[in-house]
Amino acid sequence: MKVAQHQGWQRHIPALQWVKNYSANLAVSDLTAAMIVTLMLVPQALAYAMLAGLPAHVGLYASLLPLALYAVFGTSSTLAVGPVAVAALMTASAVQPYAQMSMAMGLQAALVLALVSGLFLLLAGLFRLGFLANFLSHPVIAGFIAAASLLIATSQLGTLMGISSGGGNMRDLLSSLLAHLPQLHTASIVLSVLTLLTLLLARRFGTTALTKLGCSRFVAQTLTRSVPAILVVIGTLCMQSGAEWFEGVKTVGDIPAGLPEFAMPVIDLAMMKALALPALMIAIVGYVESISVAQKLGMQRRERVDPDQELVALGVANLSASVTAGMPVAGGVSRSVVNVDAGAQTPAAGLFTAVGMLLATYFLAGWLGHLPRLILSATIIVAVLSLFDIQVFTRTWQENKGDFGTLVVTFLTTLFVNVEWGISAGVLLSIGLHLYKTSRPHIAVVGQVPGTEHFRNIDRHAVEVCPEVITVRVDESLYFANAHYLEQHIQALVAENKEMKHLILMCSAVNDIDGSAMVVLEGLNTQLAELGIGFHLSEVKGPVMDHLKQSALLKHLNGKVFLTQFKAYQALACL
Amino acid sequence: MKVAQHQGWQRHIPALQWVKNYSANLAVSDLTAAMIVTLMLVPQALAYAMLAGLPAHVGLYASLLPLALYAVFGTSSTLAVGPVAVAALMTASAVQPYAQMSMAMGLQAALVLALVSGLFLLLAGLFRLGFLANFLSHPVIAGFIAAASLLIATSQLGTLMGISSGGGNMRDLLSSLLAHLPQLHTASIVLSVLTLLTLLLARRFGTTALTKLGCSRFVAQTLTRSVPAILVVIGTLCMQSGAEWFEGVKTVGDIPAGLPEFAMPVIDLAMMKALALPALMIAIVGYVESISVAQKLGMQRRERVDPDQELVALGVANLSASVTAGMPVAGGVSRSVVNVDAGAQTPAAGLFTAVGMLLATYFLAGWLGHLPRLILSATIIVAVLSLFDIQVFTRTWQENKGDFGTLVVTFLTTLFVNVEWGISAGVLLSIGLHLYKTSRPHIAVVGQVPGTEHFRNIDRHAVEVCPEVITVRVDESLYFANAHYLEQHIQALVAENKEMKHLILMCSAVNDIDGSAMVVLEGLNTQLAELGIGFHLSEVKGPVMDHLKQSALLKHLNGKVFLTQFKAYQALACL
Repeated sequence: MKVAQHQGWQRHIPALQWVKNYSANLAVSDLTAAMIVTLMLVPQALAYAMLAGLPAHVGLYASLLPLALYAVFGTSSTLAVGPVAVAALMTASAVQPYAQMSMAMGLQAALVLALVSGLFLLLAGLFRLGFLANFLSHPVIAGFIAAASLLIATSQLGTLMGISSGGGNMRDLLSSLLAHLPQLHTASIVLSVLTLLTLLLARRFGTTALTKLGCSRFVAQTLTRSVPAILVVIGTLCMQSGAEWFEGVKTVGDIPAGLPEFAMPVIDLAMMKALALPALMIAIVGYVESISVAQKLGMQRRERVDPDQELVALGVANLSASVTAGMPVAGGVSRSVVNVDAGAQTPAAGLFTAVGMLLATYFLAGWLGHLPRLILSATIIVAVLSLFDIQVFTRTWQENKGDFGTLVVTFLTTLFVNVEWGISAGVLLSIGLHLYKTSRPHIAVVGQVPGTEHFRNIDRHAVEVCPEVITVRVDESLYFANAHYLEQHIQALVAENKEMKHLILMCSAVNDIDGSAMVVLEGLNTQLAELGIGFHLSEVKGPVMDHLKQSALLKHLNGKVFLTQFKAYQALACL
Repeated sequence: MKVAQHQGWQRHIPALQWVKNYSANLAVSDLTAAMIVTLMLVPQALAYAMLAGLPAHVGLYASLLPLALYAVFGTSSTLAVGPVAVAALMTASAVQPYAQMSMAMGLQAALVLALVSGLFLLLAGLFRLGFLANFLSHPVIAGFIAAASLLIATSQLGTLMGISSGGGNMRDLLSSLLAHLPQLHTASIVLSVLTLLTLLLARRFGTTALTKLGCSRFVAQTLTRSVPAILVVIGTLCMQSGAEWFEGVKTVGDIPAGLPEFAMPVIDLAMMKALALPALMIAIVGYVESISVAQKLGMQRRERVDPDQELVALGVANLSASVTAGMPVAGGVSRSVVNVDAGAQTPAAGLFTAVGMLLATYFLAGWLGHLPRLILSATIIVAVLSLFDIQVFTRTWQENKGDFGTLVVTFLTTLFVNVEWGISAGVLLSIGLHLYKTSRPHIAVVGQVPGTEHFRNIDRHAVEVCPEVITVRVDESLYFANAHYLEQHIQALVAENKEMKHLILMCSAVNDIDGSAMVVLEGLNTQLAELGIGFHLSEVKGPVMDHLKQSALLKHLNGKVFLTQFKAYQALACL
């Protein structure tokens, strides 16, 4: 039951499919969703650009062409692409050294990041390497998300208090905050507390309160989701009022009029090399976030999402961000969910959102320059703190100590060193623990349950064994890292059981035997043959038997291959 | 059926066991074996020290205390420890930069190598990390041995032609040979050819010829094995004769009279840091060589060899080499086989060999200084070329393309970069290929073979399926790297099969489900529940069921766990 796929280049342009059946009804649904998502995206785009240490309008620019192109190349009808919090945080720490030289260098670094991560994604898609993202195990992702949400929240504390602060990890952030603490700005703090309270209350009680007041559920939800946009409007109007009380509250600052120009990023090889690792990490993390939400929504709607084509689409989106003065983009979790709830039916909703953002950028640019930064910071904090889940620590501790170790190592390394090291350490640790576990498989000597055809571990069950016939069951596929372990186990058994005349290897749990393991079994066969001990196999699975037939082992086997363990024992044992 | 082991510190001194039952009979056997091994070891010890780029007597010194201590701490009765070719080659490339400064520095570097690799081995033994050596897969070892034997043979060509040459990899060796080619020394070449021919003929026909001449098999073998020692005597006598024809033939040079003094190696932290990686590699490669021959011989003699205690014993042997002016040591393959053939019964044979080497060092030191180096080079070449097996390349190509890739990468990297990089690249590649394979397991939709209780792949067999009940069989344990692959597969199936009401995951080949995979299955369960699709498991194995019971999945499972797939299908299908 292979999934039907379009062949050739058409496979890479899914829009060719949905455009055929597009209708007015679909357009109404998509337009409604797009308007609501645009209302959410304007403040988020400004906020995430600020989080990345870039001028706020960069976030708007990254919400134009990338969204439109994802609608053409993406396979998810409802994934909402654009700037996202985690990628923005990673952009911040990569861009920082350049931004310290000059903002022009910082902007260039952001374009290079989008360019290189776009290339990584596109190549991975064309070579179908999407499976690599699966090596981010659950504890690695959980530890990373926990640390990233704390880092993001902490990075915004300075703006809330009206002081400037920065840093790539917790230590730098906190020491920078402490250093600037004497410059606290009272008006900023008061406004921040008000904004935070409004956001939290709206989030917690907004929809329920509005429905009780008589709004329909749709209107109530839409109003609640517009609260950040409404605060942006109120905040900007306050600042424009020029009231003395607002003096010293930092604003977003001048936003260039009009739209971004199309321009290739400057190709600086030294910078590309320095940013290659952060770009790879942004690509992987952005992809994991996008594909997981796209798959989940796709299944709910019974639509197929193609993981490899998603790489291509996200790659194209990032490449387009790099030539339109943008920053790295990905599929956002909350915006995508809102997009679905608001009625998005096809990728055209994304296209319409891009048009909405275009209008916002064109008409609001000058006006948004007066927006207080602290409103964006409060928006960010409320968004990311919902990601932080303290219970994941206790739950993982109870379930698996190895996973807990991976979680804590990823969390602490991300928090106190940086994101790249945190994820790398976590991935290496989880691979190492997995290899360790499979390199020491469970091996049991089994005997016959009296009067049955069943064979069980002699250490756990009352079973019969014939001292001349020893049966060993290994509960793992055999590969280079555990074949010698099995060999040593059998060698020790042979050394101890001086009466042994036959050894049966029961393969009921062996899904595969690789080349190295085959060589080890051949060696074992020779050694057993020299001692006059027969070497037999039982319950060999089909695919393993196929491998066996090609190997030298079967040719030289000093014994037989039995279909079942019962038949093997019947044939060999001193019954 | 656990292997009985002695508890506490006694476990670490196996000699306490065999000494109890030692007898005169055993002593006669062990003494005979020790004499023959000593005859082999004297020329080999000198040759391997020379191969390591060190003065020849260092090889003798490394054949004293390490052998005696292995006899106390080792668990193999017959493993012959001492300088070995491969470790000597690795020592050569690590020591070279220091030896170029001064021979005193080179000697110190060799001691530091023995010290650090001894520490690695001892710690690995105490923490039971012997299993790490299993990550050297068969193609890595084969590629490494092939490259190392070519490197060792090439490194000796200069001595055979009477010129000086050196280098850590093939490129350096060949360019150094070419540069010195004009200085060819005719007498050396003639003598080299004669020596090589004698060694090759003796190796090929010696034992047969001598038995035909009336010798007993034992005498014939012993004489054949003594040929290198006899050539050493003849060569040394020739040089001592002072005949004009031998002028210009390079000798081993002055060997200090008497025995090595006991002295701690100078602790130079910078040097220890620089030599840590080569020392680790020497430890791993030496251990793999030792443990594989020890295990093979142990099983033949039905004696148990303890892999972790072998680490301790080899660690102690190397530490003792580092305080007695020696070099890194390991268990040698050919000498151990000879030791068994010659009748060695207990580790006392090793102890007696140490005494033999002590006498040789004490009485022959001055005289051995006249030994022509080319005789040692010829001995090395004949020894290592028997290790080179060209067929391993064709055989591996036929059996497994991935293994062939690993083999060739290890071979070429070892040959043209160095041993450390070669082994590291091979290990990483084989781990990567293994993870790749298990991250994309075989997943089949299965149906019922009509009239039976069996279920088979619907793509391969004529089976019956009910469109409302889809059964998926995954042929691999589930872990973080393949859980999302399975999830995506099922999500695609759900998207395509609009009639699906129940999904059964058939777990007959699942030996384990790790924490990350459990989380993925929980997510899948929620997604299916939202769609009103039942999620069932069948044929879950005991250990997997234990994990399941601790997880949240079983609590929230939107379906049942069935003992067999047949029962599941009977309960759910539209029969």
